[in-house]
Amino acid sequence: MIWWPKIQQNPIITLTSDFGLDDPFVGIMKGTIHSIASEVRIVDITHGIAVHDVMHAALVIQSSYCYFPKGSVHVVVVDPGVGSTRHPLLVITEKGYFVGPDNGVFSAIYKNSDRIEFIKLTASKYFQHPISQTFHGRDIFAPVAAWLSRGLDPKKLGQFITKPVKLQLPYPRIFGTDKVEGTILYSDRFGNILTNIPYTEFKKFFCKKDFKLSVNGHLIDRMYPAYSAAKQKEIFAIWGSSGLLEIACYQGSATNVLNVKPYDNFEVEINFQERGE
Amino acid sequence: MIWWPKIQQNPIITLTSDFGLDDPFVGIMKGTIHSIASEVRIVDITHGIAVHDVMHAALVIQSSYCYFPKGSVHVVVVDPGVGSTRHPLLVITEKGYFVGPDNGVFSAIYKNSDRIEFIKLTASKYFQHPISQTFHGRDIFAPVAAWLSRGLDPKKLGQFITKPVKLQLPYPRIFGTDKVEGTILYSDRFGNILTNIPYTEFKKFFCKKDFKLSVNGHLIDRMYPAYSAAKQKEIFAIWGSSGLLEIACYQGSATNVLNVKPYDNFEVEINFQERGE
Amino acid sequence: MIWWPKIQQNPIITLTSDFGLDDPFVGIMKGTIHSIASEVRIVDITHGIAVHDVMHAALVIQSSYCYFPKGSVHVVVVDPGVGSTRHPLLVITEKGYFVGPDNGVFSAIYKNSDRIEFIKLTASKYFQHPISQTFHGRDIFAPVAAWLSRGLDPKKLGQFITKPVKLQLPYPRIFGTDKVEGTILYSDRFGNILTNIPYTEFKKFFCKKDFKLSVNGHLIDRMYPAYSAAKQKEIFAIWGSSGLLEIACYQGSATNVLNVKPYDNFEVEINFQERGE
Repeated sequence: MIWWPKIQQNPIITLTSDFGLDDPFVGIMKGTIHSIASEVRIVDITHGIAVHDVMHAALVIQSSYCYFPKGSVHVVVVDPGVGSTRHPLLVITEKGYFVGPDNGVFSAIYKNSDRIEFIKLTASKYFQHPISQTFHGRDIFAPVAAWLSRGLDPKKLGQFITKPVKLQLPYPRIFGTDKVEGTILYSDRFGNILTNIPYTEFKKFFCKKDFKLSVNGHLIDRMYPAYSAAKQKEIFAIWGSSGLLEIACYQGSATNVLNVKPYDNFEVEINFQERGE
Repeated sequence: MIWWPKIQQNPIITLTSDFGLDDPFVGIMKGTIHSIASEVRIVDITHGIAVHDVMHAALVIQSSYCYFPKGSVHVVVVDPGVGSTRHPLLVITEKGYFVGPDNGVFSAIYKNSDRIEFIKLTASKYFQHPISQTFHGRDIFAPVAAWLSRGLDPKKLGQFITKPVKLQLPYPRIFGTDKVEGTILYSDRFGNILTNIPYTEFKKFFCKKDFKLSVNGHLIDRMYPAYSAAKQKEIFAIWGSSGLLEIACYQGSATNVLNVKPYDNFEVEINFQERGE
Repeated sequence: MIWWPKIQQNPIITLTSDFGLDDPFVGIMKGTIHSIASEVRIVDITHGIAVHDVMHAALVIQSSYCYFPKGSVHVVVVDPGVGSTRHPLLVITEKGYFVGPDNGVFSAIYKNSDRIEFIKLTASKYFQHPISQTFHGRDIFAPVAAWLSRGLDPKKLGQFITKPVKLQLPYPRIFGTDKVEGTILYSDRFGNILTNIPYTEFKKFFCKKDFKLSVNGHLIDRMYPAYSAAKQKEIFAIWGSSGLLEIACYQGSATNVLNVKPYDNFEVEINFQERGE
């Protein structure tokens, strides 16, 4: 029985990449898609992924795809190994279709999905020819996504595999009864710092004055429900819109003040005993 | 009698924000919109509004919305007070629908519209849940715009109010018979400087050698009809495409040469007596 | 007999400019287009063309347009002479319609097309009024593209001309039996350097150790089929996805290492005798 999500009547293809918007790469991918699927809607998630940062892309697609209709096709091209032996991959979950290199970029999708299937893309009749060795976004991923959006049976695109590449995603590590090591994921345009501490598991341990974050020598022990609840330039913790702990600075950039960068670690002191159930 | 503009058959939602394009915020808003209104067209006006600069957004949406079809839905999210007591707002004019925070961002729309109505958005059944305290663009403004584009009766979205927040917009101030104080609004990518001096009221006072702008110590007394009429690196005045006086430098950046920033004031010397009617 | 390409059922208008995305120019053009052609699909190729760099735009549109469906309408606005005597132009080839200033921006299209026609745009009834002297993208090119996408007969838009402005495009120059002078076109976000050496004519002369590029004092004599075939930080040559020789640095920026800029020349030493047929 096929449990795969139905492609909708007004299908959507999303694009995420490290291509930026100054080069014509993204436009060329869109032209390729529309040459196959003239009616599909294409939505950019972002093309500002840090160059070659597969982990960054994995985190961004995880935080974004669930806001799109079921059955959308999500293309992610952060692909330092383009032209090498890494495979092109299709991942299917209950929520949608994911097309990109088999380099771990969908790792954060794997763990969130009850049902999942992996197809190594080999059916080159659905690729664009000649296939370059440097731009599979144009020659493989865009056309495959376009064919999927037209309702092509995914089984025709290649062979099922069971062991795609997996990234080691940064999870918070708990030490003893009162210490957690967290990791900084990335910063947004406002200078807010996203961490890997999820609300769902940790909300009960954080309250107004009962925790301490130690980030690059700075101590943060305030949490607010909204940015504007803080004082001007105050640094504080906040549960962000993607369900992760953020460190923010009202009317300023926490990233600049704390001088942190992606994948830096930091320490959290909380009292598990007292508050845990 | 309802005078509100009809939602078109191929409705458009425009987006304006200070989110930039490197984060997935804009993509997530589009996914949210398409999850409710699969057929709507979404057009970005810009996401490059200066961070938290509500005035900048107010000026940009004013200069842009009139180029979209009547009945379009314009979403503007520059929202430093997100999660605080500021309301979400719907503004309706003869030209279209405007959705965003009630922080004055639509102030320049108010004054240009003969008929206008304000609705405080309270009908949370049309919001996306759970409603975060940090991203109302995703949880309130995007879904409300999507529902509007589907023809939902705006009255169902909340209560009419009469006193939305208003920004003090910078208007030119006239002193005596020959002095005007103008304000720099912002600069564009070419380094052209937009001012708040409108063509409609001031055109008759400007002519080729009969005015003097004094900007940060520099004197400008030339006006040209086109950029390329000036000499290389010459600084001059020009009536810009949005109906405002601009200061430009041919093949250079007036902003850099004059070293100005948004909301700086400058002086204009003109002869009202001689030319006014 | 009319050989012009048919406008498709789901027509596409592409946009390429030096407007950037921080100003509302691109959004305003899209609003103008949709006010005339509500159903057309608009795809951005890029708005990151270097300011006023007509050559850059000419190269980018050449490398992009062929990935769009036949009959698409391509608008290119890099227009330092806006408001001067330069004409607005429509170019028609077997592949599509090209709308923009007659300043040479379509020069690279001319040479790739067997059949071509040029129309000077004069029918101001299809323009948007009042026509500004500083933003023909909004007032002329966007509305003309919109009308074309609706199937308007191009002959109604103006007069045929035969001598549009042509740019001197940089072609490789061959000296004697073993020297070629190439030109750097531009660099991409990854720091890869695009050159003007085309695969179709030169592939037979390049092989693994039988050529030497001399670029700004650096010697490059390696060619790889994929970026990841190189060693960390190694500088090498590669045939890029647009069919041109590129100079790349694996996990680094060739542009920064070699310290080059667009339109710099470089030298290639190859052995024509030995390998040519």
